[in-house]
Amino acid sequence: MRSAILPVQIGGRNGLTFPELWNPAATTKDGMTDIHPEAAIASRVSIGMLRQRGKFVPDGESFAPCVRGTDHPIHKPNNKEDADMGMQGQPLLVTSLIDHAAREHAGREIVTRWADGSMTRSTWGEVGTDARRFAAALTKLGMKKGDRIATLAMNHGHHLVSWYGTAGMGGVLHTVNPRLFDEQLVYIINHAGDRMLFFDAAFLPIVERLRDQLPTVEHFVLFDAPAREGYLSYRDLVEAEDGRFEWVELDENDPVGLCYTSGTTGNPKGVLYEHRSNVIHAITEIQPDVFDLSNRAVVLPIVPMFHANSWGVPYAAATVGAKLVFSATNDAQVLCDLMHDEGVTHSAGVPTVWIAMFAHMDATGIGYGKLRRVIIGGSAAPRAMIERFMRAGIDVGHAWGMTETSPIGTMGKRPWNWDDMSFDEQVDMVCRQGCPPFGVELRIVDDEGSELPRDGRTSGRLQIRGPWIIRRYFRAGEDAVDEGDWFDTGDVSVIHPDGVMQITDRAKDVIKSGGEWISSIELENAAVGAPGVQEAAAVGVYHPKWDERPILLIVKKPGADVGEADILDYLKDKVAKWWLPDEIVFVDELPHTATGKILKRQIRDDYKDYRLKSLAEA
Amino acid sequence: MRSAILPVQIGGRNGLTFPELWNPAATTKDGMTDIHPEAAIASRVSIGMLRQRGKFVPDGESFAPCVRGTDHPIHKPNNKEDADMGMQGQPLLVTSLIDHAAREHAGREIVTRWADGSMTRSTWGEVGTDARRFAAALTKLGMKKGDRIATLAMNHGHHLVSWYGTAGMGGVLHTVNPRLFDEQLVYIINHAGDRMLFFDAAFLPIVERLRDQLPTVEHFVLFDAPAREGYLSYRDLVEAEDGRFEWVELDENDPVGLCYTSGTTGNPKGVLYEHRSNVIHAITEIQPDVFDLSNRAVVLPIVPMFHANSWGVPYAAATVGAKLVFSATNDAQVLCDLMHDEGVTHSAGVPTVWIAMFAHMDATGIGYGKLRRVIIGGSAAPRAMIERFMRAGIDVGHAWGMTETSPIGTMGKRPWNWDDMSFDEQVDMVCRQGCPPFGVELRIVDDEGSELPRDGRTSGRLQIRGPWIIRRYFRAGEDAVDEGDWFDTGDVSVIHPDGVMQITDRAKDVIKSGGEWISSIELENAAVGAPGVQEAAAVGVYHPKWDERPILLIVKKPGADVGEADILDYLKDKVAKWWLPDEIVFVDELPHTATGKILKRQIRDDYKDYRLKSLAEA
Repeated sequence: MRSAILPVQIGGRNGLTFPELWNPAATTKDGMTDIHPEAAIASRVSIGMLRQRGKFVPDGESFAPCVRGTDHPIHKPNNKEDADMGMQGQPLLVTSLIDHAAREHAGREIVTRWADGSMTRSTWGEVGTDARRFAAALTKLGMKKGDRIATLAMNHGHHLVSWYGTAGMGGVLHTVNPRLFDEQLVYIINHAGDRMLFFDAAFLPIVERLRDQLPTVEHFVLFDAPAREGYLSYRDLVEAEDGRFEWVELDENDPVGLCYTSGTTGNPKGVLYEHRSNVIHAITEIQPDVFDLSNRAVVLPIVPMFHANSWGVPYAAATVGAKLVFSATNDAQVLCDLMHDEGVTHSAGVPTVWIAMFAHMDATGIGYGKLRRVIIGGSAAPRAMIERFMRAGIDVGHAWGMTETSPIGTMGKRPWNWDDMSFDEQVDMVCRQGCPPFGVELRIVDDEGSELPRDGRTSGRLQIRGPWIIRRYFRAGEDAVDEGDWFDTGDVSVIHPDGVMQITDRAKDVIKSGGEWISSIELENAAVGAPGVQEAAAVGVYHPKWDERPILLIVKKPGADVGEADILDYLKDKVAKWWLPDEIVFVDELPHTATGKILKRQIRDDYKDYRLKSLAEA
Repeated sequence: MRSAILPVQIGGRNGLTFPELWNPAATTKDGMTDIHPEAAIASRVSIGMLRQRGKFVPDGESFAPCVRGTDHPIHKPNNKEDADMGMQGQPLLVTSLIDHAAREHAGREIVTRWADGSMTRSTWGEVGTDARRFAAALTKLGMKKGDRIATLAMNHGHHLVSWYGTAGMGGVLHTVNPRLFDEQLVYIINHAGDRMLFFDAAFLPIVERLRDQLPTVEHFVLFDAPAREGYLSYRDLVEAEDGRFEWVELDENDPVGLCYTSGTTGNPKGVLYEHRSNVIHAITEIQPDVFDLSNRAVVLPIVPMFHANSWGVPYAAATVGAKLVFSATNDAQVLCDLMHDEGVTHSAGVPTVWIAMFAHMDATGIGYGKLRRVIIGGSAAPRAMIERFMRAGIDVGHAWGMTETSPIGTMGKRPWNWDDMSFDEQVDMVCRQGCPPFGVELRIVDDEGSELPRDGRTSGRLQIRGPWIIRRYFRAGEDAVDEGDWFDTGDVSVIHPDGVMQITDRAKDVIKSGGEWISSIELENAAVGAPGVQEAAAVGVYHPKWDERPILLIVKKPGADVGEADILDYLKDKVAKWWLPDEIVFVDELPHTATGKILKRQIRDDYKDYRLKSLAEA
């Protein structure tokens, strides 16, 4: 029993009192104490799990050893104190998300535009049924609770079914990023121990090339093509089932998803999501200050489903029955057409996606349709991009997060005095990464781990904690957080007095010059505002006096005529004088990670022996 | 251990493997099985509680009996399987709500307009500090975890502090409705076993009259007046503390609030809210399809804080840092002035409140200011009221719920095709009580408990279940729900094919005529639309042929000239012909419950021997 607020009379079917249930006199010679099954079960139930009556199945492994040899088929925790029984305690489960969507929003559409240009339409009701068919098929193939099921796939309706179907058979859905290098793919799938791999036909060459190196994978399944020698098909599996599968018994702390970080340093690391963390994240995401999703929203998640749960959109949309529009290709024209044809109101993607969209819009003169809110994340959004959306009357949700944070860490703030702010002040505010929603906490610390002030000036390592923040990487053997649950994000930021967080850099990208820090991100963001600049990367190169000095790598817009002096002139009133790069290097392209971020590590490697012209001349 | 998804290697400080931890060979002769403390603790932690490292305190009563005699001061659940360690598992606590608001929205205002007309302004930051001072003061007075602390108070900032302060010392905040009869107040406070009572000076006469009958109450504290003989003062208690109190250790399933139903039948019954249920309810409430609350919202909760948690507003507002505007009086002029002066965007109250507001607005010509969303609940909102708000461009959230449902059960739906609907179709939709947000489930059943179809025609008893729905009344000894967790609401409703629920009546108010059901609510709602009608109540009276026939009690608007024929004429195309009341009875007023609902029970009692004129004439 936990702290009693009533006399410790335990009611229920046998009316035993507490001393009868727990009998200290029954302590055995080896120090074990006897306990009556009723009391043991009561204490277990008081821990708040599996209160769903009629479904409670005692967990033999963890619990039976404590109890006399009975099979105690107790369904009703009636023998608990009233004080602990006020409210129902259904677990927070991903399966409840799809059950809700299928029951309350059965007719709301799920649209897929496939890689071959064909379109299919489904509904939340059909996704609910198909998820049960999917779960039944996997169970028939021998998949069991806790098994990892991998996907190597773009965004589409079958992929969505696999998320919920895997959850419902107790599995862990492992979304694999098909843009990774072969060695990374092999490492990740083996590390996860995936038993099945569902994949798009477009990635058949990858699978054929690697399958011999994937000994744990027992079944390879084509998501979007008929079965062939050595490959099952999604459609065959699902169509053989009737959709009456009962979800397996789940605990809200059971794992349900697995996603590996893109691995800019060392081996990729697996982040294991739980039912509880995903559900709390989903309810959080729909709120007006985060994604602002309602039943009337039509969401086009451009962010891939293999990229940090597509930022949680497939879960959040189910909570409110939003319409989902998927595209299996990330072509700007396709996305623009979908946006217009399907009446998209909300979209989410990394900055590079929007750069491509803008280019397409500029070339064709096409507008935004019904779009009213875009979520930009993955890396900091340039000011010019934010301004363009806002001038078009579109709300910008500038998000910060990472695979380890499910991923919403913060969302750009529209504070209470928003309507009184000038347009420029509003843009300034959105350029910052914003505030954590209820649930997560932020702090910044120095290199010794001491907390730094929220003064808007002091930069420090950004740390985060909360119910949807990682505790431990998959199979890591030790926690990724400190004693206080703080996870070090590897980002460097300030926190303003109003609680607004502003990323200043990645810890490893900071340019350390003369003992001070220069933010490579701020330099880049300033530079991409300059006319003729398409992309920019700032890195530090060796300097004998200052340790490091910044240089800027610039990719020009097609046909742009812009020189070093133009850019330096543009920058001079936008950053501190001593932040101005020592040199501008024009390049044809910049290297990117599989998730579209600029690969700073490679640039640093490429330029690690770079000798500044000013030094060469000296 | 729960189902393992990894080899059962347990890491952590001693590297023991599972067989070493749980040794079947150590089963004792009485059937008990030995288990290593590490494994026991691991299994406990796997149940997902108290993962906050550094704060984990083993619970001796429930747990120690299973473990060898050790004091196992384990702080880090490092000895758990990686598979179960993906995400952090902070408990969902009401104290985290105020911590969040105080940290992230420190400067956002809490405004109180006191009964004497004076105004005070506080902030979420100050409420956070004051809540800690409040908790410290209660702890000094000997209050302990689980103790019930009562309030007999209107809406104001000190009341808000007491909610969070009580939660933070581990207490259970019992909001008592001052409008109840003396016998009910005495019953409730004694049944709850309240140890302290905080009250407004306005209720001093009640307290002086009843205090001798309240033996469990050790301290009586004035919220809004100086101490006097026999009475402490809130201000003295709070001002003696420095605000550095540390919240007590809490489990998310600990009780935190207690509210008694208004008791239209039998003794009032206590509904015991838990930290977890209140927090999930709060996050749910802010979503666009429910209250639609953001950091920019200014909320005037007209619904009293002693009425079903003020519909959760004081919790929900903290999650987003909304500004709260409290009025300690419910005078329409005061409320209208506050609405304008404070820029209120959201308000919530029962229909009778809005009737009074409309009368004031009509008399003065004052408008709605910045109001953009009103939540109407407590009883069904008349169509004319909904229409008036909507014509003024104000969103109406027509809510259904009860004390037992925390209280949000459903919220009027604005479906995905809202913008394509005509104004009348929109009003039709809002007149219905809407859909459950993610988390709760509804069904309708017949008198035998069989589920009825969602066809929009079949009426049945409305049942509900979910994480913020009651399981058991306080000290009831048995659950208030059935095997499947379904709670019978006592309401009668249909569910439409689109999932929209529409209350047709209270089960006990249904008029049973000729074997069919006539909805008293539909009759009343139709009648209040008639010119000159202020309020209406429909009840069934004895009829020898039809068992019951409806009569309508009508309160006319001041000065209105309306007769029986006018009303029957108005109704004739609004309800089925056989629903038309056999008689209209004009009365000066109708009896109301303490929460402002029409007291149908009393009307039924008053009219139980009523003889229809048509029968007298026969």
